[in-house]
Amino acid sequence: MPRLRSSFSLPSLKSLDRSLGRMGQQLAQGLRHAIASGALRPGERLPSTRTLSESLGVSRGMIVEAFDQLKAEGYLESLPRAGTAVARELHRSDVERTGNDFKITPRPKGRLPASAKRFSAVEQMLRPQAGLPLAIAHPADAAAPDETWRRLGNRVRATRAAAPSGYIDPRGVPELREAIADHVRRARAVRCTPEQVIITAGTQQGLFLSAQLLLGRGDAVWIEDPAYPGISAVLGAMDVRVTHVRVDQNGMDVEEARDLCPDARAAFVTPSHQYPLGMPMSMGRRLSLLRWAEEADAWIVEDDYDSELRYAGHPFPSLQGLDPSRVIYLGTMSKVLFSSMRIGYAIVPDALVAAFGGARAVVDRHSPSADQHVLAAFMKEGHLEAHIRRIRSAYSERRNALMSAIAAYLPDWARLQPSDQGMHLVVWLPKGVNDVKVSSDAREAGIVVRPISPLYASGKGRAGLMLGFGGFSIAALERAAKDLGQLLRKHAPEVRRSAAGRSAKAGKAR
Amino acid sequence: MPRLRSSFSLPSLKSLDRSLGRMGQQLAQGLRHAIASGALRPGERLPSTRTLSESLGVSRGMIVEAFDQLKAEGYLESLPRAGTAVARELHRSDVERTGNDFKITPRPKGRLPASAKRFSAVEQMLRPQAGLPLAIAHPADAAAPDETWRRLGNRVRATRAAAPSGYIDPRGVPELREAIADHVRRARAVRCTPEQVIITAGTQQGLFLSAQLLLGRGDAVWIEDPAYPGISAVLGAMDVRVTHVRVDQNGMDVEEARDLCPDARAAFVTPSHQYPLGMPMSMGRRLSLLRWAEEADAWIVEDDYDSELRYAGHPFPSLQGLDPSRVIYLGTMSKVLFSSMRIGYAIVPDALVAAFGGARAVVDRHSPSADQHVLAAFMKEGHLEAHIRRIRSAYSERRNALMSAIAAYLPDWARLQPSDQGMHLVVWLPKGVNDVKVSSDAREAGIVVRPISPLYASGKGRAGLMLGFGGFSIAALERAAKDLGQLLRKHAPEVRRSAAGRSAKAGKAR
Repeated sequence: MPRLRSSFSLPSLKSLDRSLGRMGQQLAQGLRHAIASGALRPGERLPSTRTLSESLGVSRGMIVEAFDQLKAEGYLESLPRAGTAVARELHRSDVERTGNDFKITPRPKGRLPASAKRFSAVEQMLRPQAGLPLAIAHPADAAAPDETWRRLGNRVRATRAAAPSGYIDPRGVPELREAIADHVRRARAVRCTPEQVIITAGTQQGLFLSAQLLLGRGDAVWIEDPAYPGISAVLGAMDVRVTHVRVDQNGMDVEEARDLCPDARAAFVTPSHQYPLGMPMSMGRRLSLLRWAEEADAWIVEDDYDSELRYAGHPFPSLQGLDPSRVIYLGTMSKVLFSSMRIGYAIVPDALVAAFGGARAVVDRHSPSADQHVLAAFMKEGHLEAHIRRIRSAYSERRNALMSAIAAYLPDWARLQPSDQGMHLVVWLPKGVNDVKVSSDAREAGIVVRPISPLYASGKGRAGLMLGFGGFSIAALERAAKDLGQLLRKHAPEVRRSAAGRSAKAGKAR
Repeated sequence: MPRLRSSFSLPSLKSLDRSLGRMGQQLAQGLRHAIASGALRPGERLPSTRTLSESLGVSRGMIVEAFDQLKAEGYLESLPRAGTAVARELHRSDVERTGNDFKITPRPKGRLPASAKRFSAVEQMLRPQAGLPLAIAHPADAAAPDETWRRLGNRVRATRAAAPSGYIDPRGVPELREAIADHVRRARAVRCTPEQVIITAGTQQGLFLSAQLLLGRGDAVWIEDPAYPGISAVLGAMDVRVTHVRVDQNGMDVEEARDLCPDARAAFVTPSHQYPLGMPMSMGRRLSLLRWAEEADAWIVEDDYDSELRYAGHPFPSLQGLDPSRVIYLGTMSKVLFSSMRIGYAIVPDALVAAFGGARAVVDRHSPSADQHVLAAFMKEGHLEAHIRRIRSAYSERRNALMSAIAAYLPDWARLQPSDQGMHLVVWLPKGVNDVKVSSDAREAGIVVRPISPLYASGKGRAGLMLGFGGFSIAALERAAKDLGQLLRKHAPEVRRSAAGRSAKAGKAR
């Protein structure tokens, strides 16, 4: 039988302050404190509610409320016959260890999980670019869909519950899946039904879901070299074997890939506009890739991030259209509309529809539904097509301006990579120039250029810079190109040294 | 030297139709067709643009446009000195295989990847409940935040870019992280700075990110038995060892867990309101769990999905508040606001902040930014607290109504599990009654009740039903309870048989 204190007086109950109200809560907090500090010990019996009420001058109802709360929390327990005691399961050692109020003082931890370390490193790599020229950004001016999007959004939201509860189909809102199927059939020669459309939170999630679903532990996979950092990060976080396949002027070298790694289960490619270099994959390569996939019973993930933005001729038809049963097609609204909406889509073979739904449910259930309705209306009313036409012409102007500025202000040894598509241009730098250093110097001068050499598997491939032209006025583009030109000229000695070294070597060899 | 056809006439070019315009595109399509069908062969030389222009009666500019497009796509190539030919890399075998237009006829695939099969199965398990009584749903009437959310949303969106481009910090919008830090410090006794707040796409994503980041291949982990299907699905998709730990009236049995699997790297728990059973984890168990985590250098993930909804006394303080350096606290707006917004949060130890940012960037970059601003304003202006007070009282009324209806209409052998919190009640069914069968019969009668036995690791634990009360009028709740009562009474024979079996056995044993 737990002993009963003859007189019940606890320091922590002295601080009860009637003027603050909520006496039940104050009393509960005082008792928690008394237990945590050891003033009341596990197993110790408390006075009856009547006695406590009299000695503390607090109504009996309040005492009962505090006892009930603390019983529910496990600080107190009811005694077999009657009465209340401090829970016996609160071991003395825990109380001593945690001290006052059971709060444990944080101390430095021994080891971080290996995966946490990997993700910390990735955080650096995927950090968003600052919104300065020549970041790869969108028009923020008249070409932005701002007003239409806001007005249409308000109208659509007014016709529906603004705060719909419950979960929806992880594959997305049906009207949007239909609108997207129409769009990609027309604009991208994708062959699909609305049922095959999975709404994603953007291309990054499309890549992540595809990898999760197509690859198991130890499986082999092909990616391009250089590659989009987003796919490198996805595969780097998985337990898979990555083969980095050389890209030439026709895109991924499929023959080399077959030699290096014939047993891959999937290939991730950017056939319309290789990221970051910008060339399309030739029809011959496309057919070789599809032939390999069929022979190897493997899958192809087509990342089609910006193919609506082609300036010469017409957008290339998708790879998916050639073999809808083997290709997962990933599209996004981030490039043609705006990225902070976080809506993209995967067009997947029938056999994978349920799996994509399940993977999406596991990862985050589904995309927010309100904006899916707004986007469906935006597409259905023709705003998306009109918007794409508008930005294609805005981008085209800015692209021409940047190309002229590059010709005018950059040193001759900075060579423009031919490309007819997208939101950025690539400039190659000669041997001896460190593009990572150039990029960090540029950043200090208020210019954002992404270095290309780290995008190679070796981490030190050919040096080059990605220059975005979408989000800036022609004047801003020209100013940035001029500043970048000055900055690059400082590297002229390195270029000369490297060239001299090469001709000296050549001389010796002769 | 590729041979030149003496006369150039192709059936696919006969269909050029001047009245449709876009002659360049029509011509390109005609040539693609001719190549794909084999009418033009790899290496075959095309007439000059001038000859073609004359023979087809199409302007030379159009011919050049079509040639350029097809060169870019890899159908054609320029010849070394002059002229144009069908690309030699288009192998005859591919053309024959793919037939007309290079399109490959889909054929059934040999094998689906193992992970795809797993995710397909999960899709069934996580399928959203229909919006019928007694689904676990939200108030859709006066208690819904609809009007405030819409008005405030329109106001906030009017003050900002409606279509902001560019990517934001994967951890979320700073104002929202601050508002959430304030909220959880005040309402949940969570100890944190805004820097420790990671915006998630809801609890499901919080669980997924935590698992990805804390666990490596083959690592051991504890979860509760029975458990939330969302965490079972996350861990089931990973290569980890899951120990299912018995839950009793004090929550997860930590001693048993230590015996079964002392080397776990993490434990996933629902300490405020065990899912699905509803009891809180006692203070003694909380301290044992924290002591284990410290001794084992392991992590605890606290899923605090509905603790704001407590009807007797006050919400329990969080487990995180006892040891912020060991506990990842997961909260969500899905239960107190609305789930289709897909916003939740993880409060993570300082040491893991960068890793969570990186993991979020890999998985899907970040949550859409527009609603983060709306939610920040909603919280800052006090709407969230007011809303929680309002729904707590609405839920409380409906809960009381459902409890009375259960007492009035359900058979005596259906026993209510005591619980003071949340959006659902649990009713236990006696041995012999199949809760999965009851649930599917109920669904046919227009009632949604989730069976509990499948939530146990064995897949056939104790039979019971989850009854949601939030989203329905008192009349609807009463009607549903009445119908459910009738339906349950049909199972009375099984209950009697099972009881008779037990007493017969008991008789024998005696």
